[in-house]
Amino acid sequence: MRVRDLAESLGGRVVGDGLRRIMRIADLEQAGKYEIAYVDNEKFFAAAAESKAWCLIVAEGVEDKFPDRTLIVVKNPKLAFARTWSTLSPSGYRKGEIHPTAVVAETADVAPSAYVGPYVYIGEGTSVGDYTQLESGVVLGANVTVGKHCVLHPNVVLYDAVSIGSFVILHAGVCLGADGFGYVRDDDGYYYKFPQVGTVVIEDDVEIGAHSCVDRAALGRTRIGRGTRLDNMVHVGHNCDIGERVVIAAQTGISGSVVIEDGAVIGGQVGFGDHTRVQKGAVIGSKAGILPGKIVRPGVWWGIPVQPLDQYKRMNAHMNRLPEMRERLRRLEAEIEELKKKI
Amino acid sequence: MRVRDLAESLGGRVVGDGLRRIMRIADLEQAGKYEIAYVDNEKFFAAAAESKAWCLIVAEGVEDKFPDRTLIVVKNPKLAFARTWSTLSPSGYRKGEIHPTAVVAETADVAPSAYVGPYVYIGEGTSVGDYTQLESGVVLGANVTVGKHCVLHPNVVLYDAVSIGSFVILHAGVCLGADGFGYVRDDDGYYYKFPQVGTVVIEDDVEIGAHSCVDRAALGRTRIGRGTRLDNMVHVGHNCDIGERVVIAAQTGISGSVVIEDGAVIGGQVGFGDHTRVQKGAVIGSKAGILPGKIVRPGVWWGIPVQPLDQYKRMNAHMNRLPEMRERLRRLEAEIEELKKKI
Amino acid sequence: MRVRDLAESLGGRVVGDGLRRIMRIADLEQAGKYEIAYVDNEKFFAAAAESKAWCLIVAEGVEDKFPDRTLIVVKNPKLAFARTWSTLSPSGYRKGEIHPTAVVAETADVAPSAYVGPYVYIGEGTSVGDYTQLESGVVLGANVTVGKHCVLHPNVVLYDAVSIGSFVILHAGVCLGADGFGYVRDDDGYYYKFPQVGTVVIEDDVEIGAHSCVDRAALGRTRIGRGTRLDNMVHVGHNCDIGERVVIAAQTGISGSVVIEDGAVIGGQVGFGDHTRVQKGAVIGSKAGILPGKIVRPGVWWGIPVQPLDQYKRMNAHMNRLPEMRERLRRLEAEIEELKKKI
Repeated sequence: MRVRDLAESLGGRVVGDGLRRIMRIADLEQAGKYEIAYVDNEKFFAAAAESKAWCLIVAEGVEDKFPDRTLIVVKNPKLAFARTWSTLSPSGYRKGEIHPTAVVAETADVAPSAYVGPYVYIGEGTSVGDYTQLESGVVLGANVTVGKHCVLHPNVVLYDAVSIGSFVILHAGVCLGADGFGYVRDDDGYYYKFPQVGTVVIEDDVEIGAHSCVDRAALGRTRIGRGTRLDNMVHVGHNCDIGERVVIAAQTGISGSVVIEDGAVIGGQVGFGDHTRVQKGAVIGSKAGILPGKIVRPGVWWGIPVQPLDQYKRMNAHMNRLPEMRERLRRLEAEIEELKKKI
Repeated sequence: MRVRDLAESLGGRVVGDGLRRIMRIADLEQAGKYEIAYVDNEKFFAAAAESKAWCLIVAEGVEDKFPDRTLIVVKNPKLAFARTWSTLSPSGYRKGEIHPTAVVAETADVAPSAYVGPYVYIGEGTSVGDYTQLESGVVLGANVTVGKHCVLHPNVVLYDAVSIGSFVILHAGVCLGADGFGYVRDDDGYYYKFPQVGTVVIEDDVEIGAHSCVDRAALGRTRIGRGTRLDNMVHVGHNCDIGERVVIAAQTGISGSVVIEDGAVIGGQVGFGDHTRVQKGAVIGSKAGILPGKIVRPGVWWGIPVQPLDQYKRMNAHMNRLPEMRERLRRLEAEIEELKKKI
Repeated sequence: MRVRDLAESLGGRVVGDGLRRIMRIADLEQAGKYEIAYVDNEKFFAAAAESKAWCLIVAEGVEDKFPDRTLIVVKNPKLAFARTWSTLSPSGYRKGEIHPTAVVAETADVAPSAYVGPYVYIGEGTSVGDYTQLESGVVLGANVTVGKHCVLHPNVVLYDAVSIGSFVILHAGVCLGADGFGYVRDDDGYYYKFPQVGTVVIEDDVEIGAHSCVDRAALGRTRIGRGTRLDNMVHVGHNCDIGERVVIAAQTGISGSVVIEDGAVIGGQVGFGDHTRVQKGAVIGSKAGILPGKIVRPGVWWGIPVQPLDQYKRMNAHMNRLPEMRERLRRLEAEIEELKKKI
């Protein structure tokens, strides 16, 4: 692809040789002939200047830092770089095929353009949309719905009746629809299983990291909204409602019936008590703990239990002054003794 | 099933039309004809009154809140509702079958009533009891024992010599019997593998959530007692002894040689140091951290390191008063200066 | 094996009957005829004295505690015991075989001495070294490199282009090379996928616990150094560089671009912000939290955010004295009032 065509597709402006060919993305240090890199941080200007990249994507206003280079000038270089990758390497969907070792139930409905890999199992009444790829060892229970252009990496498991939209990516080992953790204790202390007969609904354009688990609802459904991103080993309990464009980092655990509104950002290893609600515009730092039933309002939150970031920082500052406070107490006590004697 | 028959099986009392037929459970909002719902909380009385459910399960003493309705009156509505589910939808065991794609070692002993799904592997000397279901991709190593009426969901892995009782449910991806994390450091800082040659014993009626891992003992055995429930992604280290009717929420991690006595309740994301002991009657809140060797006595515990809940709350209250304390210190210092001048 | 031969291989000294035969390792309580146990802690001297073990491995200087016993006297009994196990039970590599149900791409290169189990999938251009075992359900993508003498337990997944060295053990469900968690947010709040086109390199003699995940680099590589040990459910983000002989306990989460230098020891459930660096000689306690960009110097660290252990302990001691401090404040205030009246 020529630099000028790429620039046009990115809505950017060319500086230098617009006829150069670009074939691959690369990072500043390793880029060479036919390769394009980006720089969006002053820290890396020196590295960019020394880079052998065939073309650089840079932000508006910094063109003159890179004289004699071929540049594409854009508003957001990192985003443009990501888009360049999509343009240069359209995710090569595998050709439609059902591998001879796959087991597909008679009543399943698999689009001819879908790829069904080795050892895949597809249950009764399940449908798989166009251009979807099911990699080796994927298991789809009965009455599962998988949309178009999805990629289910090896060993993904979807229990019965789970439904996922289109353009969904599930990484290796993701498990959707296992029973929620709900029991009723009887008089003998025995934990009797509460019905877990709801389902899981994953909307379009969701990506879920390796080994994450989303439990089915007891009654009703557990939902992950459109455009949301989950990292590895995230646990989503039964009946949760996760909104659109939410980001949740690795190893965070979400108890039952939690609501996370659109656009929230959640760090890693965060723990949510049941029935909490995170409002739009909330950002929760890593390792935070949220008490059951809590409402987390817009703003940045941190700590166990969770509190506004500035309050958390003030509290930490106070704590760091405890030794000093004890010293001041000691001094006051001495001075009072002194005064008492004088009087 | 008729309401009066259901009521009898639940040990409950009918109010209204005992001849009505009930076919399914449902929640208050979605329930309709032939469907039964429950209400055990005043918060939901209004919703229950408006529900179209064919029958409601309610607690003793609140019948008159629901005039003109068909009711089953019981002591514990939620438990009765769970039992109703078991009665109406007996978990439909699959018919005995060994799927043609399964690989079963010659010396394995699989009950004729057991279901062995696609791509299941069963190793030498392994036995599978009556009516047990092994879903797609389950791997049983050599000399494994699986009891009766178990359900092993897709991709469960049992290493060699692991033993599980009857009526055990293992959700997708559960891994039992991987090597414990035990090494001996030599003089060069190299971590030499300590023998991990013990086993894992899971007793009857245990349920383990998706992707949880229970490591084999170094020597001896790791045990999970009868009736215990583990949520998703729980880690149980080598040589642990988890008692009966214990409940452990998601993402909790248990180091080696920990003992948890019968009936303990453990929250999510809790971390246990090795050789700790949790006594009967102990309840540990989510995200708590327990130092190695600690004994956790009966009562409610919280925090890092773990402490009795009321002590934890007092500590928190003190911390919240730190700003006030510093202000009081400042004032005292000023007053002392004042007094000094006066004298 | 005779005691004297075993002692020689361990560099130890025999006390008692060097001609006795030893067949198995065991723990003190269960050991009997032909079995060898070890004791390295005074707490277990009584148990050792009563043990029926055919031979005991003990530390130098304590021989006389065990009169009339056959002993092997060494510097480090636990290490000698682990070595005894390796000597007595050389890990029985399975014979070279490609199971008839395995699917191996035509361009894959599998050593004749390698074992490829049932339902294994090996992609195009992938190579598997001598004596390596791939257990049931292992999935190797395209252009993967696996060295010699490795063991990949059931359902391990290696994405395309991942490379692992020799003598590597990956426990069930390990996932190497899933996409890192990297997105660029556009003006509409949409998370656009940043290219995740780097790889994962695992060096020789690494062991990784069940269900741990190591993400591929965005650009470049994620590395785990020689001799390093990861416990179960550890998350390693994109572009991390984990050194040699590092130990990381269960459920620890490591964000992107973290560097952990050789020989560091990391507890369980620790959380690392991105771009942190842990220096040689650092030990980080369980459940610690490390802020992004932090450098953790040699020494023992603990807490959230992480701090030197002694500082953490002092802080805890101060906090425990808060009630006392408030009492002292109250007393001072009263005394000042008293003094004011007097003057």
